[in-house]
Amino acid sequence: MSSQSLPLLYDWEKLQSFCCDVFTRAGVPVTDASIVAESLVQADLRGVESHGVVRTGIYLKRVEQGMMDPQAKPSVVSEYGNVALVDGNNNFGSVVGSYALDLAMERAKLHGAGIVGVKGSNHFGTGAYYALKAIQQNLILLVMSNASQTMPPTGGVRPFIGTNPLCIGVPAGEENPFILDMATSVVARGKIIVAAQKGEKIPLGWAIDKDGNPTTDAEAALEGSVLPIGGPKGYAISMFIDILSGVLTGAGYGRYVNNMYENWQEPQNVGHFFLAIDISRFMPIEMFKQRVDQYMRQIKNEPKAPGVSEILVPGEIEYRQTEARKQGGIQLPPKVVEELHEIGLKYGLQLSDAAFQHHPVIGETQGLTG
Amino acid sequence: MSSQSLPLLYDWEKLQSFCCDVFTRAGVPVTDASIVAESLVQADLRGVESHGVVRTGIYLKRVEQGMMDPQAKPSVVSEYGNVALVDGNNNFGSVVGSYALDLAMERAKLHGAGIVGVKGSNHFGTGAYYALKAIQQNLILLVMSNASQTMPPTGGVRPFIGTNPLCIGVPAGEENPFILDMATSVVARGKIIVAAQKGEKIPLGWAIDKDGNPTTDAEAALEGSVLPIGGPKGYAISMFIDILSGVLTGAGYGRYVNNMYENWQEPQNVGHFFLAIDISRFMPIEMFKQRVDQYMRQIKNEPKAPGVSEILVPGEIEYRQTEARKQGGIQLPPKVVEELHEIGLKYGLQLSDAAFQHHPVIGETQGLTG
Repeated sequence: MSSQSLPLLYDWEKLQSFCCDVFTRAGVPVTDASIVAESLVQADLRGVESHGVVRTGIYLKRVEQGMMDPQAKPSVVSEYGNVALVDGNNNFGSVVGSYALDLAMERAKLHGAGIVGVKGSNHFGTGAYYALKAIQQNLILLVMSNASQTMPPTGGVRPFIGTNPLCIGVPAGEENPFILDMATSVVARGKIIVAAQKGEKIPLGWAIDKDGNPTTDAEAALEGSVLPIGGPKGYAISMFIDILSGVLTGAGYGRYVNNMYENWQEPQNVGHFFLAIDISRFMPIEMFKQRVDQYMRQIKNEPKAPGVSEILVPGEIEYRQTEARKQGGIQLPPKVVEELHEIGLKYGLQLSDAAFQHHPVIGETQGLTG
Repeated sequence: MSSQSLPLLYDWEKLQSFCCDVFTRAGVPVTDASIVAESLVQADLRGVESHGVVRTGIYLKRVEQGMMDPQAKPSVVSEYGNVALVDGNNNFGSVVGSYALDLAMERAKLHGAGIVGVKGSNHFGTGAYYALKAIQQNLILLVMSNASQTMPPTGGVRPFIGTNPLCIGVPAGEENPFILDMATSVVARGKIIVAAQKGEKIPLGWAIDKDGNPTTDAEAALEGSVLPIGGPKGYAISMFIDILSGVLTGAGYGRYVNNMYENWQEPQNVGHFFLAIDISRFMPIEMFKQRVDQYMRQIKNEPKAPGVSEILVPGEIEYRQTEARKQGGIQLPPKVVEELHEIGLKYGLQLSDAAFQHHPVIGETQGLTG
């Protein structure tokens, strides 16, 4: 099939299988391949394209170039009480992250809270991927990661700190869980990558070019720096995430976190920080969930500013996107489709097999089944 | 002495003694009074006037009106493993916070990390007050508190969430410790209180008035809402601080955290969240401190933007302010001086006794002593 005639709409389950098969054929153990594929497709489902299957190509290239080691297993370097230090041994970030998350959750249930620091890891996808798993266990999860240099310190002109992401997940009762998953930049650098791939301009204020000038050119922004939220406050938050994820763990930090796209001599040595909290050690879980529900409902019912139709809570949009894309398919940009198509051919797989076909739902089949 | 002739420059130690004496004579046990006074004057030393002795009057009024109970002692409601829940029993926030900090640090040394949630507390001053104590113990401290309603949710028009502060302290070696202590608003509401007391205008973008319009009038801003940093991101961070500090602990949250200045029927029921981390369980403390030093030095040595003379790291300005004000005295706004003067008279104390007198230093006395 020529790339001209490739479909743009994909079935999330089939797309996940496609990615899992690709990684497996590239030498990744199937259990790990399924984690990576799940993490990527979940991001596309949630509308976080920047961390979706768009990353498949670069992940594979890191493996093919020997920059990631899918054979190495993460290991515990040290543990004491409720804290542990993990070495990812340069496996996929989402494989390492999942290993660390399990340790943190286990310790939370044993001690009330569990903290796991991680070194020797790679880009670990979205923080929400881990938060959603912790929420299913009735745990609160705070997860952070450092990243390669993309933002200048306040007063600087070139990238020094990463857009180090901060994520927190909190279980709710009848409401959707609270999920804050943000980069410390005005926007995630990945959004600029997507804009560049779509050939779109970016809003002023997202980034500066390599000379420190404001720019709307996505390509120029990728050569320059994205800017932190709130100026010095975002810069400081990014530093503190770097300190917990990198300085404390023995991972890279600042200039020692290598760029996934540009450094082909060394592993990234990304660091992460996981904190899991057992809610039931503070109050009965049902009471807590009622309080979260009430809190979110009261905020949603606040008077709205002129022109605002709805007040949203963190994670709400992503839950709606997930429902919509599970029902209606995941639309991928042509550039991403072409890249995945080529990757598929390389590994003897047809991306088009993952194309979205509408599945009839009960309402529509009654005529046939009734 | 008439308020016209009152000095504006004060000696930090004498000012701390004055505040401690005032609180003691108002019925606060001397050990607690000294904590509150230390917290307030330390804020003035660090240049955080909004959390300094300007709060003396309102703290006293809360006690006098029966809205705070200086006789009640904080108590542990429940504890399990490395987590504990504390009820402040409506004592001063800085007294309750100091109690919770000690518990969190003790647990960190026992288990690697310690988490203490707090309910039934009040305005606890600056987070840095606690971070500085944890740093002296070679611990990393993350401390948060919720606060009464001052910011609208994104898309809202009236205050619903607080400017819930986030603070992290990290020990360094030869460099100053890393201290991030920020409100989740563009500026701390206290800065607007100070501007109002000074009769100064505020920059556009700090706040909206009660009708949702941007304003430069400090008084109008206090009747309206301050705005979160980074729009929806700051709103979400403030929510997560409220969830950990209030929803999880059983304290007030959202509209249930009462306003210190406006509500004279009920205690504030502020909530806090303390996380202390024993660095030595991750790596030798000296190695960690060297890494922090290197990180901060590398950032400070980054190329500077046009017109920028120096790149600063979090807490650096406050350390310089502290040195300068210990040497040169603390300058207070006339309105604050007049209020403290009146308070002093009420309790038989002379504020002017705390006036700054220059102490000769060796260099200056050599002529006399040599």
